[in-house]
Parts: sequence; structure tokens; C-alpha cells
Amino acid sequence: MKAARWHAKLDIRVEDIEIPHPGANEVVIKVKQAGICGTDIHDYMSGPHSIPVDKPDPLTGAVAPVTMGHELCGIVHELGSGVTDWKEGDRVVIAPLQNCGKCYFCKRGLHHLCVIQAGLGLQTKEGGFAEYCKVKEYQLRKMPDNMNWAQGAMVEPTCLAMYGIRRSGLEPGDTLLITGGGPIAVLNMMCAFVCGASRVYMTEKHPARIAKLLELGATEVFNVTECDALSEIMDRTEGLGVDIAVECTGSESGINLCFDSLRKRGMYIQSGLSLGEVKVSPWKWALKDLNMIGLWCCNPYDYDSVIKLVADKRIEVEKLITKTIKLDDIVTEGFEALARNKEKKEMKIHVIP
Amino acid sequence: MKAARWHAKLDIRVEDIEIPHPGANEVVIKVKQAGICGTDIHDYMSGPHSIPVDKPDPLTGAVAPVTMGHELCGIVHELGSGVTDWKEGDRVVIAPLQNCGKCYFCKRGLHHLCVIQAGLGLQTKEGGFAEYCKVKEYQLRKMPDNMNWAQGAMVEPTCLAMYGIRRSGLEPGDTLLITGGGPIAVLNMMCAFVCGASRVYMTEKHPARIAKLLELGATEVFNVTECDALSEIMDRTEGLGVDIAVECTGSESGINLCFDSLRKRGMYIQSGLSLGEVKVSPWKWALKDLNMIGLWCCNPYDYDSVIKLVADKRIEVEKLITKTIKLDDIVTEGFEALARNKEKKEMKIHVIP
Repeated sequence: MKAARWHAKLDIRVEDIEIPHPGANEVVIKVKQAGICGTDIHDYMSGPHSIPVDKPDPLTGAVAPVTMGHELCGIVHELGSGVTDWKEGDRVVIAPLQNCGKCYFCKRGLHHLCVIQAGLGLQTKEGGFAEYCKVKEYQLRKMPDNMNWAQGAMVEPTCLAMYGIRRSGLEPGDTLLITGGGPIAVLNMMCAFVCGASRVYMTEKHPARIAKLLELGATEVFNVTECDALSEIMDRTEGLGVDIAVECTGSESGINLCFDSLRKRGMYIQSGLSLGEVKVSPWKWALKDLNMIGLWCCNPYDYDSVIKLVADKRIEVEKLITKTIKLDDIVTEGFEALARNKEKKEMKIHVIP
Repeated sequence: MKAARWHAKLDIRVEDIEIPHPGANEVVIKVKQAGICGTDIHDYMSGPHSIPVDKPDPLTGAVAPVTMGHELCGIVHELGSGVTDWKEGDRVVIAPLQNCGKCYFCKRGLHHLCVIQAGLGLQTKEGGFAEYCKVKEYQLRKMPDNMNWAQGAMVEPTCLAMYGIRRSGLEPGDTLLITGGGPIAVLNMMCAFVCGASRVYMTEKHPARIAKLLELGATEVFNVTECDALSEIMDRTEGLGVDIAVECTGSESGINLCFDSLRKRGMYIQSGLSLGEVKVSPWKWALKDLNMIGLWCCNPYDYDSVIKLVADKRIEVEKLITKTIKLDDIVTEGFEALARNKEKKEMKIHVIP
């Protein structure tokens, strides 16, 4: 079968490899559609960040080259021994996290914090950018009949956004600021609205993306190169600030804009970005009596809720997909297109193996 | 009557002024005991920070000189019109916060976040370092018969600590790190234990205070000048980290030690200190899926709970008091003693007018 494998930074190859066979409690699925994530681009451009290269992954034993791709859906193709709740032909979405099931966090139901967690398509040999992909039975989620493949491959990033919105305790009518205009920022906006937000303000600097964000439903988008976003936000919130701020840029200016824009006892959400050190004023955290959360992605808890909302088009995730390409073209039309995406015309690119 | 009034930085004078009389819904109390807070020292040494000097306070109209002191208890001396629930001679603890009752936050029961809040003894003309003090009726809390004046004057700072512990969601058996060894750090330790914490580790560098912290019940105190506190904490938590970290130093090293010492999905508490900018890594917030809160002090919500716990000696707050002095001596024996407290031999100094 064909598979797009990460060998090294800037070296992803579409290769012909053996179709995997499932071990006990494993399932092989025929991949129908898979999305390229910012994390994939990060590992393509400057990796390895989380892909094991020198020593095998402690949970899975995987070492590069690995097949990438962790936003995927497909059809159950082959069942391993012990799998009794699924049958060939079942349509499934995959939750990418693998866990040990035994550590402090797994024992407390916090599997996404497993001390030796492994993400499919990063710390596993198999991934979604292939014709077939082997996963653990517990990674399967049933796709309802009214969900198409494009929607199915959007479930994983939508779960990441919904995880933050759920933990934020968003209340009806809440007003949000979301810094950044990428796919996770957009999905946060969509999840916030479906959960009862009244207004979602966003920041972005690329005109093409500003237009896209407005088309997708943002209340207003502030171009941080042209206006004082803080002043605009205060104008629109009677000087109080927003109820919730979701930080999706990872930049010092984005982070501090969120802290400055929040009302007292507001909620700050740090999306799971790979960041360096930034300067902040903890005094503001105290002065505003803030609640804050950091989000570790890849959580397996929001699938059931998100699948219903996506299938029923309550969250219109297909609108994010700007291009659907063939697996053969994944490097030039996928990774390179997103790496060169200076004008931010591409939002989400999907791959059909 | 005598009153210790802040005129300017390093200029607090014990002066003879008129005894205040209560207006409508106000009460004058005869002060029995009052504690000197770190905030008072901060305004004495380098103020004004929150004391109005150039224009009147928007809520109270006060402008310096103001009588300081906001940790106090006493006896009801005179009732203003409209006060029906109290009588002369009632023993009371004072909640120092005054609020407008009308703003966004007051309407939502978050009076301590009132947009024009005023703290007694800072933004009011009256304060606790005087023979008599005028307050609003809603600032009174009944002192039980088994509570003495020393305990009564310790209720306010204990409420600040309990506010953080309550919001942290501390669970039975939780392990804590508290950075810093001042009164608020100690009260956090005591509140954590009374709420079910198993072990409370603290950091401190002054030998006299390390001895005091151990005497007061800290599980262990790490001298940050002599050991690698992070490594010691990881040794004692099977490499996971602590469940809750309470940051009471305001220093970049203290803040980052807390983030580094927390387990995944742990709780970070930023105590309400006046801080400058510090460098932090928000990536750690995401990687650890953290919960974090900032604390605005002076909250009026924990008095009923704390009064019972203090009166019944479940929280032994009297042990923090290292000296009790006369109002006449407040500058030399109080403010100067705490300002010069390099060896940290003084913990909490109380004043009897």
C-alpha cells in the first residue's frame, strides 16, 4: 500500500509498504480521508519534535520512519483477536491517542495525560496518510450514517477545540476573544457559538484569512497591524473585557492581548502550542481574579458529543477545508502548500488515499 | 482618639483625631486588635500604591492622610440609622472591602471585583489602626464567644488563604508546594491541612523562618539556596509533581518552580502580589493541561467558614503572631520592625489601640 512517511525534516516520502495486520485488540481500517494538522507541518519543517528517531517510543516501540496523519476516518477492514464490538465495513472516526492504561493518570480517567502516551502518526509506526492504518480497538468511534468522510476527518481537531470550550465553563451569551485565525482558532469559534456564545472576536493580519473568518461566522476580526485590538474590544464590552479568551497564536503579543482583554474573573485558555518563553505580568492574573487553563490536545473524551454536532451540521466543519488532494501529491500539494502558506489562503487540506 | 495615619511614603503618624460618627447603615466599632499586613508595609516603604493622594477615591471620596489597618476586630460602639441587626457591645470581625453594589460584578455576587471597590484602611478615611473605626453594616461579621481578639484580627488574612484553597478544588490527600514563607504562605499551609491536604512542602531561605515553618506544621521546607527544590519535590512525589502549587513569592524563580513542580492537570494558584513582568513558558501550561487561578484578595465570602475554623482552633492562627504592640509604638515597633525584618524573625505583628 502507499503511505506518506516522515524520514527526517523536509523529507516525507510516499512509499510502497506492507499493509499492516492487526494484533490482539487491534483493528486495521481502510483510510477514507485524513487532514493535515499544524503539528504535522511543524515536524515537517523543523522536526523531529515528537517523532522518535534515536530510541524507540516507550509505549509503541516505534522509531522513524513513521507514517504521519492523525485526523482520519475510514472503514473497518480487518479485526484482530479479541475485538468483538466491531465488524468489517463499520464506518469509524479514529481518536489518535494511545495510552498505557496503567499509570497514575490512566487510572484516574485522564488517559490523554498518560505518562507514556503516544499519538497516532507521530509516535506510532502507522498513521492516517496511508491506504490502511492499524489502531487499537479503543481508538474507534462510530460514524453516524449522516456523517460524510470530510466531516469524519474533521472530528479530531474539533474535539481539541471543544475540549477547551467545555473546560472553560462557557455560559450562555458569553463574549470571546480568539487570537489567531488558523483552523484551531476557527473551530474554537464554531464550538463557542454552538455552546451559546453571543459574540466571538478574532485577531488576524492576513486579508485573505480575515475575509475567510468573517465568512465562517466571526463577529468581527481585528487586524492587529491596523488597529489597537484591545481598545476595540473594550469599546465593544462596555470597558469590562471579554468573558473568555482563547490564545491560538503562541506569541507574546497574542498572550498578553488575551490577558489584557479579559474581564475580571474571566477565563484564559492556552491552546496547546509549542511555545518558547514569553514575558507576562502575573499581577494581572491576581488583579483580575482570573481562571486559566492550559490544554493538552489529543483528548479522547469529546468524540461522542462532537460527532453528533458535526454530523448534524451544528458545527459546519467542512467549510474549513480549502483543498482535497491525493496521497501521491501530499508533499507538494499538502505539506509544501501549507509551509508556503504565507498569504494564509489555505485553511485545512484533506488527503484521500 | 489616636489613629495611625499614612501621610506619605515613610511618613505614618500617630495623631489625635475626632472619633468618627456613623452615617446611615454605618457602624462605629471600638477596635480591640488589628494586624499589620504586607500591603501596609508595601505602602509604607514605597507607596502610595493604592492610597488615593491626588484625587478622591471614586467610591469613598477619601484622600490621604488615611488611617491604615484592615485586619481588625472589635466591639460595636455606635449604630447609624437603619442598622437593625446589631447592637452596642456586639463582638465583630470586619471584612475590609467596600463596594458599590451596582456594577456588573456586584450584581453577580462578585463584590470583591467591584469596579470601584475600596479597601478599608487604604481607600477609606478610616482604618483599624485607631481606637475607633467606622465601617458599613455589611462589613460586620459576628465573633463567636469562643474567639479571642487575637484570633479575630487574624480572620481577614486567613480568608485570603482559604479563598485560594477553596477555589483550587483541593481533594483529600493532595500534596502541595507553597513558595515563600510569609504569613499568607503559612495560612495557606494551615488552610490546606484543615481541608484534607496530606503534605505541604514549602520553600524559604532564612533559617529562622525555616524553623518557624516547621514548628507551624510544614511537612518539609526546602532552602532554595542550598538544594534543588524541584528535584527534592519530584523525589517525594514519585516523579509526578505536586497536586497544587501556591505561589506566594512573586519572583520569577518562585513562579517557575511552581509550574515545574506541578503534576499534569495540577492547580496553580497565584496569590495576590504586586508583581512585575516575569518570563514563563506557556507551553508548560498546555503540556501539563494545567488549571490556574489568580487571586484577588479582600473577598467577603469566606468569613463564616473561617470564623468557625479559627474559633475552634482548627486553624491555629495565633501561632503566627510574633509580637503584640501598642498603637503608640506602631511605627517603630510595627512598620519599621517589619521593614527591617531581614532575618524574617517577625511573622505577624498585632496592634492593640
